[in-house]
Amino acid sequence: MAVNSPIPVAADLKPVAGIRLGYAEAGIRKPNRKDVLVMELAPTATVSGVFTTNRFCAAPVQVCKAHLEGLHMASSPIRALVVNTGNANAGTGDAGLAAANATCAALAELLGCEASQILPFSTGVILEQLPVDRLVAGLPAAIANLTADNWFNAATAIMTTDTQPKAASATVEINGKTVTMTGISKGAGMIKPNMATMLGYLAIDAKVAQNVLDHMVKQAADKSFNCITIDGDTSTNDSFMLIATGAGEVEVNDVETPEYVALAEAVTALSQKLAHMIIRDGEGATKFMTIAVEEGRDVEECRKIAYSIAHSPLVKTAFFASDPNLGRILAAIGYAGVNDLDVGKLNLYLDDVWVAKNGGRNPEYREEDGQRIMKQSEITIRVKLARGDAAATVWTCDLSHDYVSINADYRS
Amino acid sequence: MAVNSPIPVAADLKPVAGIRLGYAEAGIRKPNRKDVLVMELAPTATVSGVFTTNRFCAAPVQVCKAHLEGLHMASSPIRALVVNTGNANAGTGDAGLAAANATCAALAELLGCEASQILPFSTGVILEQLPVDRLVAGLPAAIANLTADNWFNAATAIMTTDTQPKAASATVEINGKTVTMTGISKGAGMIKPNMATMLGYLAIDAKVAQNVLDHMVKQAADKSFNCITIDGDTSTNDSFMLIATGAGEVEVNDVETPEYVALAEAVTALSQKLAHMIIRDGEGATKFMTIAVEEGRDVEECRKIAYSIAHSPLVKTAFFASDPNLGRILAAIGYAGVNDLDVGKLNLYLDDVWVAKNGGRNPEYREEDGQRIMKQSEITIRVKLARGDAAATVWTCDLSHDYVSINADYRS
Repeated sequence: MAVNSPIPVAADLKPVAGIRLGYAEAGIRKPNRKDVLVMELAPTATVSGVFTTNRFCAAPVQVCKAHLEGLHMASSPIRALVVNTGNANAGTGDAGLAAANATCAALAELLGCEASQILPFSTGVILEQLPVDRLVAGLPAAIANLTADNWFNAATAIMTTDTQPKAASATVEINGKTVTMTGISKGAGMIKPNMATMLGYLAIDAKVAQNVLDHMVKQAADKSFNCITIDGDTSTNDSFMLIATGAGEVEVNDVETPEYVALAEAVTALSQKLAHMIIRDGEGATKFMTIAVEEGRDVEECRKIAYSIAHSPLVKTAFFASDPNLGRILAAIGYAGVNDLDVGKLNLYLDDVWVAKNGGRNPEYREEDGQRIMKQSEITIRVKLARGDAAATVWTCDLSHDYVSINADYRS
Repeated sequence: MAVNSPIPVAADLKPVAGIRLGYAEAGIRKPNRKDVLVMELAPTATVSGVFTTNRFCAAPVQVCKAHLEGLHMASSPIRALVVNTGNANAGTGDAGLAAANATCAALAELLGCEASQILPFSTGVILEQLPVDRLVAGLPAAIANLTADNWFNAATAIMTTDTQPKAASATVEINGKTVTMTGISKGAGMIKPNMATMLGYLAIDAKVAQNVLDHMVKQAADKSFNCITIDGDTSTNDSFMLIATGAGEVEVNDVETPEYVALAEAVTALSQKLAHMIIRDGEGATKFMTIAVEEGRDVEECRKIAYSIAHSPLVKTAFFASDPNLGRILAAIGYAGVNDLDVGKLNLYLDDVWVAKNGGRNPEYREEDGQRIMKQSEITIRVKLARGDAAATVWTCDLSHDYVSINADYRS
């Protein structure tokens, strides 16, 4: 069960004018489950994305990058995105690239556009060839049920080890006009995005210039998907795509405008919500942890320390056990690689409880106070470095028996 | 149960002339267990050590460093080492430093030397004050049973979550004379030494000049304790001490001699054995894994990739399950931070089985061959980068349910 994350209600997910979604059960890995998603875009749409920095980046990621790069040079817009689960098409060499390209070609023919106007995505097992024939065979069924109100099914179609679909909507008023936005995400393991998450798609009905959208997607990812980790394993397939359909009334053509600021803020907030859903549904997660590192010299060192805490198996198992064995947090801070850190000035808080004062145990800290916070399902670890005014926040979950069970049995 | 690591037999552990060992049950954390160890050295002994790079280094580590530094300036040799378990005396501020110094003063008075001639060590829970009164009260009992053949009891006295004591002996012939050496180590969690392991002590009866010993201990640590990881958590208390008692016939005063080379080789081999014992007894370990990264541009990038694989929870759980989900290894290689790595040239082997060829699945690889190797208790993962002739090896273990259980219940 995901930590304090109710299953989204289909009726609450707002259609976004200019994008239609359809799914199929193509039997990629297992029969009788939604495993293919097609998102069809209006010709007015702009699309921008950020991708994994993993050197073993999957074949579809390579194809996406090439098609988006082409976009900046040519005039043919992206017309559709296609996602399959059950197979990551990563570690698959030239055959994998051919499979991703064949998928684009097949969908392009069905939609009457060029293969370069399609963006392909895959998620699932690595180092196995994509069953491209089954994927292509499933495309007509997905096209047959393309509708604007299919977001809930779309969120379901991209799930792998997720226990529940992840989707949310929002609106923002800009100059008296409403922008509607809906996003979906997936991922529960191999989560430490280094550009974006496993898979995330967010559509807005504003009209946004390509270079402005490129800026906005990076800004949103840096404050959301790039601040989460479950197990420190950066995936081969991480992709976060921002789609501006251009079907609504609002238009943003410049980063230096109040319209941009308002829209980017709303997109970032919704991205954060989608990113948090991934952590709340982290494999085996029982706790949602916010790690806030403050008073650092720069953001980089704050992030280093936050990730060091978030990745420590000892910290994560202590939180699973609700055991305030908080010296493990100090150890993780100490080996984070901030080599001139003066630990004698450091303060550590668990929610409102002051645990470590000037590098040692706070004389007024009582074990029962730590215990009380540790039993909560949502906990903030706050570290104050006393050496500057930079800060960074990372979100993560605990490490439980179920994480081991899920990943020991993933392929069975 | 440790992986293929029989419990050492007391009678097989060779006394080393010039060092006597005694233990006590001081009730530091729990009653009725050996938790204090004293090692008394001959006045001819030289001592050198490497310590954790954790910024939260424990109070006893700070005192050790100060006393060893004093050694290089003054003439008073180190006369004894004292180790307690049950409390790490880390994250304890000024009170912790005072406790470590009080321990040295008390032992010095009992042995008739200066406090600066004592090296203190602690291991156990972080962020709790050391019960120094109980520790000091236990010292006379430890001194009362000081003998040269107490290595097995010494190894037992420094255990925490270890399931079995770790100790080994060796001899090496140098110019027709025998050097005898015996070492002990401890540690099973919070293991990713960055200078040395949790605790390791190796005594040799040769006479070795201080600057030569300083060189030898670094060389041995870099090829042993600095190449192991269980959970990536670098401890606050890591210490590896090399003691040359000077009581034997062999003398080494220069690094540039065949005698040095022979002795350093033997010390390194025994250090490796002690380091492997830690991995074999890793918390919850069911597999002993050797990760060999070859054909790299430099050792640094080989180590980065080896540690990335060794720390991946997804790789570790797959090995626990004997599931050849080997794409996870490729993903870990891909995010190791070697940014210009050409994955299209990379080859991956599991023992003798060629899994990935030129970055993709080897067409001749059969799942049942991977399965066969995965079921073994000892496995070598070999990665060939095809970009140079540097290499590095890291030893690690898998991640099991028992790791979570042990660390969720550590303090109970």
